[in-house]
Amino acid sequence: MNPTPEPRVFTLPGLTHQTIAGRSDGTVALEVWKQTLAPGAATPIHFHECEEVIHILQGKGDLLLGDTTVPFAAERTLVIPARAVHQIMNTGASDMRLIAVLAESPARVFLPSGDRLALPWENPDA
Amino acid sequence: MNPTPEPRVFTLPGLTHQTIAGRSDGTVALEVWKQTLAPGAATPIHFHECEEVIHILQGKGDLLLGDTTVPFAAERTLVIPARAVHQIMNTGASDMRLIAVLAESPARVFLPSGDRLALPWENPDA
Repeated sequence: MNPTPEPRVFTLPGLTHQTIAGRSDGTVALEVWKQTLAPGAATPIHFHECEEVIHILQGKGDLLLGDTTVPFAAERTLVIPARAVHQIMNTGASDMRLIAVLAESPARVFLPSGDRLALPWENPDA
Repeated sequence: MNPTPEPRVFTLPGLTHQTIAGRSDGTVALEVWKQTLAPGAATPIHFHECEEVIHILQGKGDLLLGDTTVPFAAERTLVIPARAVHQIMNTGASDMRLIAVLAESPARVFLPSGDRLALPWENPDA
């Protein structure tokens, strides 16, 4: 195991993603993502089966959590309970940078329907 | 539960600590700390019973992991297996800022002897 892995970068419209720690680095109980959301960009509305904590490094936005919209700015931390449907939106004029921590690896994403959302950074061999 | 908690700051010599997500925010499987280590400062040599991931926001230092010393700089991620004895040292000339993610809450710290290290930010009611 390499204790200081160098992550691969994935780019989708409005989103840059790095898995900075995950199964291929030896974790089982934790996965950590670093993401950049462009102004106006948003994640899908989705949920995880595990807890998630998101720390906002830069930028501002809205957290949709169930039926509630919570505005947030840099340096804030968002706590998302397991199975809670949520979405992150960049409502600012500059990039939003965040670290997302999930309590499973590989971390899985589900649509509100319950269907699993395939992620381009998922390793099919993981 | 407040999805955007405001953490309390704890200061020890050479170390500033915030628990940015933990049991009092509703987490069970995750705890997230934000820490600043002053130049020359180091954590105790210690271990956790759970996995830990540390992401370096700013500064440079050395990770002691078992018998190995691994130098690191900003933007790197350190993966610490459960029960692995480790220490973080700031070897740079400026503050080191990091986010530490632990796979349990409340997160516990043990000395190499196996004795539990009491932490000033631990809530005895948690």
